[in-house]
Amino acid sequence: MDVVRTCIRKMSAYIPGDAADDPKVVKLNQNESRFPPSPRAIRAIEAAASGLALYPESTSRALREAAAKVYSVPASRIMAGNGSDDILRILFQCCCDPGDRAMAFYPSYSYYATLADMYDVDYRLGDFAGDSAIPDTVQFDAATLVVLPHPNAPTGAVFPERDVRRLLETAPGLVVVDEAYADFSGQTVLPLLDEYENLVVVRTFSKSYGLAGLRVGLGFAREELLAEMEKVRDFYNLDRLAQAGAVAPLADNVWVRRRPGGVVAGRGAALPPLRELGLTVYPSGANFILVRFRDEAEAKRIFESLRSRGVLVRYFTGRGLADCIRVSIGTETDMVVFQNEFEALLE
Amino acid sequence: MDVVRTCIRKMSAYIPGDAADDPKVVKLNQNESRFPPSPRAIRAIEAAASGLALYPESTSRALREAAAKVYSVPASRIMAGNGSDDILRILFQCCCDPGDRAMAFYPSYSYYATLADMYDVDYRLGDFAGDSAIPDTVQFDAATLVVLPHPNAPTGAVFPERDVRRLLETAPGLVVVDEAYADFSGQTVLPLLDEYENLVVVRTFSKSYGLAGLRVGLGFAREELLAEMEKVRDFYNLDRLAQAGAVAPLADNVWVRRRPGGVVAGRGAALPPLRELGLTVYPSGANFILVRFRDEAEAKRIFESLRSRGVLVRYFTGRGLADCIRVSIGTETDMVVFQNEFEALLE
Repeated sequence: MDVVRTCIRKMSAYIPGDAADDPKVVKLNQNESRFPPSPRAIRAIEAAASGLALYPESTSRALREAAAKVYSVPASRIMAGNGSDDILRILFQCCCDPGDRAMAFYPSYSYYATLADMYDVDYRLGDFAGDSAIPDTVQFDAATLVVLPHPNAPTGAVFPERDVRRLLETAPGLVVVDEAYADFSGQTVLPLLDEYENLVVVRTFSKSYGLAGLRVGLGFAREELLAEMEKVRDFYNLDRLAQAGAVAPLADNVWVRRRPGGVVAGRGAALPPLRELGLTVYPSGANFILVRFRDEAEAKRIFESLRSRGVLVRYFTGRGLADCIRVSIGTETDMVVFQNEFEALLE
Repeated sequence: MDVVRTCIRKMSAYIPGDAADDPKVVKLNQNESRFPPSPRAIRAIEAAASGLALYPESTSRALREAAAKVYSVPASRIMAGNGSDDILRILFQCCCDPGDRAMAFYPSYSYYATLADMYDVDYRLGDFAGDSAIPDTVQFDAATLVVLPHPNAPTGAVFPERDVRRLLETAPGLVVVDEAYADFSGQTVLPLLDEYENLVVVRTFSKSYGLAGLRVGLGFAREELLAEMEKVRDFYNLDRLAQAGAVAPLADNVWVRRRPGGVVAGRGAALPPLRELGLTVYPSGANFILVRFRDEAEAKRIFESLRSRGVLVRYFTGRGLADCIRVSIGTETDMVVFQNEFEALLE
């Protein structure tokens, strides 16, 4: 008996960007934060480490209550996840029967496609209007889920609120707005939760909170949907340390307000010199920029040469992306190293 | 459009035992360890807390390599999970199409039924022969997965290896042996991995390692199956702190050998006085004992009275269990408090 499901056997595993713990590497390939997390997170984790013999609180209540204050959404509309990928998985698990449809606009975060494969879901990729506008009319094909990273990944594009509203008003099922990078754009659709029953918002602590190593994400949805999502959430999905480490920075008001500042400044400073080199750099509301070269060969060469010089950036092979690299915005020092190596390579 | 799947809408959520962080509570209801974890775990977590800005190593390599040494199984046959529940979920996700069958013997760990509901799986419960023997002939009904906690939960029963072998030889699909409590029985089927391609073994750090708050589990299976399971594992399922905190005690040889000792001694000491009271106490190879009363009313009364006196034990409502309580084995002090309160209540 071959016990493995056909849909699993035929799918490919998701491949994340290269890891590197070497502090000499300038790591600009996974949109992690190059700025340190709130010192309160570390202290809270150390304090929680003495209580590990007991199971964690199963609903991450303290975390949801702290998030409720920061995001002005009731704790009853918030779910904590083992990373935002956990929330996304729960949504697929809860809403997608095999053969159901899900959709996104291309290009998008490629893990959605992996989740669709995992749940035997027919995943359709629509096209943006122009470079990256949500089209006026969308062919939804009865999609149960429409997933929209906002800002978009890997382009960094930000969408006008009226376009997201139009999507919410015309989609036949849920619209999942993945706000992983929203702190860097200052735009959020969280206030729309009251207006649209089919809106789900996803957030992560991996980017602006500088806690990618802690695996914490949040899902925001109406209570009735959350109650169903609760059934498929692992009842101890967040360990004690992750809960404690995520509560602390939420309560650190000064740090919360200040945290996207370094990235926003670095992004603004990174664009002009790249454009002066004649490269296309897309406008970005995220903590990364997408840089387009003359051709695929040049993009690949730059990617590999940077890597050999200790600067990791991300290279994609997907349609329309193979002549690009994506560069996370690091500290001022990181960006000087990147810019110097980059200019030397382009000459 | 009702986006929630029918199988999810009709299922119930799993309800874990009551949590309680109050150190005054004698918490004997979730089979956590009442003995402290290895001090090395705490130190490793504190050291790892400074590196949280970067994503974790995605395959928990150091943890799998340390586990390989302790369990004498190659790291290539080990998967790390966010708790053993994560491994179990991955198995259902990987192997069970909607409508497929899974089975266990009643009584069993009730979360398997929740997982089956979640994956729209037809979950059958066979009967043990006598109190708790694996029957000679099993009606498998083409079950893709057979799940066997060993020692069993919530009875603590230990099975002869020849019976597990017979199950492995006759089952049409995988046999998942959940060894959450195996350190307290000293029996494991891990050496059978070489002989049976359909064997999967699951382990946890929540019991004998005293790290229920850290959420770490392990799955052991043949490489070909693990490769398929990898596709549905969240690629960052274990955060940095969980990985570090689980590696450290595995490398603490003295502690690893010694750790089940307190529970085994406490279990041995707990049985005679309960039996002297005329109660049925099932032989247990786990860190808990199942105590049977004259009737349901008495079991419920004892459960509730113990709770009001600050002693938490577990009460189940399932068939054949409503006249029982399950008591985790705590420290010597815990067990004295339990025994005193218990005897006072029975009088």
